[in-house]
Amino acid sequence: MTDYMMNPASNVLVIGSGNFGTALAFHLASLNDSVRMWSRDTKVVEGINSNHKNIKYLTHVTLPDNLSAVGPDFTKEMFKTADVVLMSIPTQHLRHILTKIKPFIRRSHLLIMANKGIENSTLELPCSIVEGCLGEQIAHNTVYLSGPSFAAELVVREPTCVTVASKNAERSAWAQKVFHCSHFRVYLSSDIIGVELAGSIKNVLAIASGISTGLGYQSNTRAALLTRGLSEMTRMGVKLGCDPLTMCGLSGVGDLFLTCTSEKSRNFTVGLRLAQGMSLEEITKNLGSVAEGVATTKSAHQLCRKLKVYSPIIDEVYQVLYHGKCARDAVDDLLNIEPLHELHMIR
Amino acid sequence: MTDYMMNPASNVLVIGSGNFGTALAFHLASLNDSVRMWSRDTKVVEGINSNHKNIKYLTHVTLPDNLSAVGPDFTKEMFKTADVVLMSIPTQHLRHILTKIKPFIRRSHLLIMANKGIENSTLELPCSIVEGCLGEQIAHNTVYLSGPSFAAELVVREPTCVTVASKNAERSAWAQKVFHCSHFRVYLSSDIIGVELAGSIKNVLAIASGISTGLGYQSNTRAALLTRGLSEMTRMGVKLGCDPLTMCGLSGVGDLFLTCTSEKSRNFTVGLRLAQGMSLEEITKNLGSVAEGVATTKSAHQLCRKLKVYSPIIDEVYQVLYHGKCARDAVDDLLNIEPLHELHMIR
Repeated sequence: MTDYMMNPASNVLVIGSGNFGTALAFHLASLNDSVRMWSRDTKVVEGINSNHKNIKYLTHVTLPDNLSAVGPDFTKEMFKTADVVLMSIPTQHLRHILTKIKPFIRRSHLLIMANKGIENSTLELPCSIVEGCLGEQIAHNTVYLSGPSFAAELVVREPTCVTVASKNAERSAWAQKVFHCSHFRVYLSSDIIGVELAGSIKNVLAIASGISTGLGYQSNTRAALLTRGLSEMTRMGVKLGCDPLTMCGLSGVGDLFLTCTSEKSRNFTVGLRLAQGMSLEEITKNLGSVAEGVATTKSAHQLCRKLKVYSPIIDEVYQVLYHGKCARDAVDDLLNIEPLHELHMIR
Repeated sequence: MTDYMMNPASNVLVIGSGNFGTALAFHLASLNDSVRMWSRDTKVVEGINSNHKNIKYLTHVTLPDNLSAVGPDFTKEMFKTADVVLMSIPTQHLRHILTKIKPFIRRSHLLIMANKGIENSTLELPCSIVEGCLGEQIAHNTVYLSGPSFAAELVVREPTCVTVASKNAERSAWAQKVFHCSHFRVYLSSDIIGVELAGSIKNVLAIASGISTGLGYQSNTRAALLTRGLSEMTRMGVKLGCDPLTMCGLSGVGDLFLTCTSEKSRNFTVGLRLAQGMSLEEITKNLGSVAEGVATTKSAHQLCRKLKVYSPIIDEVYQVLYHGKCARDAVDDLLNIEPLHELHMIR
């Protein structure tokens, strides 16, 4: 009998209490015995435990009775009583947190990573960070969750589809069981690098899409930008040995559809405001929460150089974000590069 | 020296004077010596030749001096003085028109097909219809153009990217030269079936997306629907022997981004109104122009049966359009099917 068949309803520990973590915790509480959400912020912990509200994110949502909060310290007890541990924290903090919780993580835990990004200092995806921090065996059993899922829509039970990927098929099937219901459909994949890469790069393209919209470009241009951006993402995937068709899945195309077309996306909003002439510093201050794509752009640009991947759109976003290039000049430069075969450097 | 190098600027004959045909003719006139647009409607021909306006489509646009109209008869002369012949007519009429113009088509013509769809009576894509009507050699040299390009945006020179596909690489390079400039970028492909299939099925998914939006579903649901629809399209492509990655290109994902998110798309509008309770008959009457996806849905559904392709979304759109199934029931049924591996029947 496999693990997940012995665990039809789980006790879940969610590490992170941001928008997405809170929304996932809300969803998981409806399907599982208990959910505890860890926050580094004492006030967030107190608010949830006394008023069933997260005072910082999704503040209008009443959290269910079987969802409580823990933190800011990590304790052995938290992990001992959990069979599922879900991480939803910014990728740039992942290594630090994993190092802290390493003593408490056991092989029997179903570890699920919901963060997206590429670490700036190492150019590593979360799956590599997990392997570096927790070892090969735990990394092999870890599940990566990605797909088009605005937090604000999850908490109103808007039908949503995501992908869970793992090298261990039993573990992804277990994760499917922990999350799946008719309004939160969970598809399976074995391509962890593909799923993670797509989930990361889509945030860079969401910034590009915001820039395009902010400059007044219309639908034809946005569709072209996203498609040609998808081809950059796919070229990176090919170089990293993943299945290029993973980019066509929920974590790639699906999340591009979502985040590149809506101001509900923080990354899209960053691009929109950049095009309107605000500085990155100003935007980050006003936004109030991290737009993962800003850090990812830096890593993605460097990773493309390292992999020798042709990435004109990623490069222009990098120039606009980090070297003050005028957004309109970036678009003009993109419109004047040579058009190649659609699958250049992919096939 | 290749054909296109001898023909830096061409004399173009556009067959069809609908939205897309008119927009392409408008664009081609800015890059080539002369463009003549054929219409079956004497009044459209007269309007263009006397007032530089198409009285039926894009009526606000002043057409340039080097764009004139011909028709409603086809003459040998029209073809003799053209080096490029571009077809932009509904797919269901393609066989009839090709049979009529067959005596005038020469091997030296650059024949470009811009229509999308699957013939209802035969379940054939335009490339097969061309081969059946004009023979293997002309079919080999024919170029298929597809990609995210709203007509209304083309005529304001909105930056747009499209794909041209041909079995004959010289001919697609020639087509690229005829169309390409900084605001109309032309990418190359050799996968004609992939490009045509994507261009057809995306119209079915645009109807699905309209239904979803009309029922009040939000962004997560739409992104999921389009991604899972893309996988149906890709499964069809795999069975038809095309490159599944073509579906990630401008004619697939690109056009999905475009047509599935905007009321500028007639197909999306059909779905939206169906969800609001209008009958297909009423919608078609009010729309004033053909929504290619309505006919394509019928063919696509039948083709999936023939190819034994698993196509739940296409099938539900078919049931709603042709068997009066309640749109909400169709969505409920989709939300309750078993979630599979993301690349089921693709890898």
